[in-house]
Amino acid sequence: MPVSPLAPAAFPDLPVIDGVRFATAMAGVKYKNRTDVMLAELAEGSTIAGVFTRSATRSANVLDCQAKNGKTQAGRAAIIVNSGNSNAFTGGRGVEAVDALCAGVAEQMGIDADRVFTSSTGVIGEPLPYERITAKIGELVDNLDPVGIAPAAKAIMTTDTFPKGASTTITVDGKPVKIAGIAKGSGMIAPDMATMLVYIFTDAKIGYDALQQALSQLTDRTFNCITVDSDTSTSDTLLIGATGASGVDVTGNDDFVAALHDVMLDLSHQVVRDGEGASKFVEITVTGAQDDQDAFKVAMATANSPLVKTAIAGEDANWGRVVMAVGKSGAYADRDKLSIRFGDIVVAENGWRAPNYSEDDASAYMKNQNLVIGVDLGLGSGKATVWTCDLTYEYIRINADYRS
Amino acid sequence: MPVSPLAPAAFPDLPVIDGVRFATAMAGVKYKNRTDVMLAELAEGSTIAGVFTRSATRSANVLDCQAKNGKTQAGRAAIIVNSGNSNAFTGGRGVEAVDALCAGVAEQMGIDADRVFTSSTGVIGEPLPYERITAKIGELVDNLDPVGIAPAAKAIMTTDTFPKGASTTITVDGKPVKIAGIAKGSGMIAPDMATMLVYIFTDAKIGYDALQQALSQLTDRTFNCITVDSDTSTSDTLLIGATGASGVDVTGNDDFVAALHDVMLDLSHQVVRDGEGASKFVEITVTGAQDDQDAFKVAMATANSPLVKTAIAGEDANWGRVVMAVGKSGAYADRDKLSIRFGDIVVAENGWRAPNYSEDDASAYMKNQNLVIGVDLGLGSGKATVWTCDLTYEYIRINADYRS
Repeated sequence: MPVSPLAPAAFPDLPVIDGVRFATAMAGVKYKNRTDVMLAELAEGSTIAGVFTRSATRSANVLDCQAKNGKTQAGRAAIIVNSGNSNAFTGGRGVEAVDALCAGVAEQMGIDADRVFTSSTGVIGEPLPYERITAKIGELVDNLDPVGIAPAAKAIMTTDTFPKGASTTITVDGKPVKIAGIAKGSGMIAPDMATMLVYIFTDAKIGYDALQQALSQLTDRTFNCITVDSDTSTSDTLLIGATGASGVDVTGNDDFVAALHDVMLDLSHQVVRDGEGASKFVEITVTGAQDDQDAFKVAMATANSPLVKTAIAGEDANWGRVVMAVGKSGAYADRDKLSIRFGDIVVAENGWRAPNYSEDDASAYMKNQNLVIGVDLGLGSGKATVWTCDLTYEYIRINADYRS
Repeated sequence: MPVSPLAPAAFPDLPVIDGVRFATAMAGVKYKNRTDVMLAELAEGSTIAGVFTRSATRSANVLDCQAKNGKTQAGRAAIIVNSGNSNAFTGGRGVEAVDALCAGVAEQMGIDADRVFTSSTGVIGEPLPYERITAKIGELVDNLDPVGIAPAAKAIMTTDTFPKGASTTITVDGKPVKIAGIAKGSGMIAPDMATMLVYIFTDAKIGYDALQQALSQLTDRTFNCITVDSDTSTSDTLLIGATGASGVDVTGNDDFVAALHDVMLDLSHQVVRDGEGASKFVEITVTGAQDDQDAFKVAMATANSPLVKTAIAGEDANWGRVVMAVGKSGAYADRDKLSIRFGDIVVAENGWRAPNYSEDDASAYMKNQNLVIGVDLGLGSGKATVWTCDLTYEYIRINADYRS
């Protein structure tokens, strides 16, 4: 698989988060000759929070994580993740696999099984050969390393064409607080409360309730605002671990929330930029809606429309399809108050093509790799922004030609 | 454009409906060297009813039809339809175009403008050069012919690869009652209360209220149960004209409703069979849901899932993606009560792959052109059936490579 044309130039230089160590291994769950398991250890005193898919058919791993989320913050914690098999829709075998992984990590690390979180990503409905993973736990524990986050980002990839990482450092009370995260995901991307697999680490000191609240709120503005193909994964999981190693308590600190937002937004955009077959990165901004919910409906209807997405792939300034998407969204709209922009170019307003509309200008704009489509409903102050990619031959090839 | 591989062998031999005459013309609205306008005249005494898109950005034609629907059944009536331009999102110019078409037909046919219904289909947002059509009204009126329904089916085509027609004849009180209809549509197909352009004619005698009620109910079981690409047209219109020429009053007659259902279902399936790029016709049947609404949600989530549709295109028995679609649908589902069938093959049950599952059998089944995917939620008696097609390279080519 060639790397997405929308990929960042290089994997970022992520800072070491004190209190977190990583290891990876080649367990051969499905892929050969590459790492497919990562283990993260979080030091005693770490707070862990998470958000998860709302899919009614979510995996045994997700159900287990949800049951443990917020239960205890005592002692060290661990996150173990495999790629190649999602352990979703595997019935009692799925629960057995999760229990075996948690028991194995808990025993070999000497921690409480309630502090072990698991994720699996890959094909749905195949039994997870978890023995291949438990056989590697000893090796993983031996290799735990504070600088191992970049290899961890690689080990969790499936159809991803590049590993995804983002970080930021802020100063609170004169002391640095660091946040670093990694993510995987490129297809089955239309998160509902969380997305794909995302792991974020910080040395901030913060209690569970405050951390969970920030995470849930920010998810609605980041990962819940992206879509590749309107399909929602059975395995979406975002976990954050705050080790407190900086000694800085960020409870109620707005700068920390803003910094966490930046890392989450960066990672969510990287997921779109690795959207299966993507050749364009598209921001859709809706303003002037009756309320924010209506704005979000219009933005997502546009972002998920196959006709809009294929027009973008074809570099066709086919704004009529945006009109269609507004119309089908279910949001209140008045055709004659609607205006549409491609970048800075007003293509339609007052219920018709803009008087100065130039097809040549609009077509030239569509040749850009990063596009902004603006829709103003002219009704109120509701607004929303979402991010998506185009729909190309390559998406069909990836998803029609082999089982992923 | 080659004809869809799912097309019927030939256009059906539609019966003459007494009281209806057709004409077509080459107005050159957009297409050259082909008919692009059809006119239908309905004799005095005809009842006309309709259902229309609920899109918030519906065209001036749809708004005009909705205003006239049920207003008067006095005198002769007319339906004039052009292809090549949808007259949607054309502001005041759109209203002007509809008014000009209605005035022209009313004047030259000597009928009430409230009995003239118009539809336009094609590109969105371009002004309709209606003068090209009004210039042809005289020729159309002169050429009205009771046997002209087949050419009419051709004149309304846009990206359709074959004309669509269906008919049935039933006996009521010892006398024959005929129903014949035509339809167009192949992309932007996810109807909401109506679909595409559909015109049905019958010589039955029936009042407006009874006809409208039957039409609305049947639409929910036929055209509202199909999807090609989840996108809803701005122009969807279904009009039915009952001339009463058979002398048979079918008010309250269940056989007539059943016969009308058959014609509508046949036409709706033909629209799916001409879905852009379609190579497989897929029926999705959901049973065992808490209620019919939940069943419909699951069926449509499956039918609209790009990952399910590309797997079908690739002849991949990827039932894990059906599990995913059930999960994201928003319907209540219990993973461990769910079962999935491809044709007669049980692929998953009790929250896991079926014990006798054979990948070879399932893969062999997927090579069929007509597929049935069955989902049983194991919860209640709610059920729904919808029809769709696969998502292929050809869909991308059609929609990315030129403006339709």
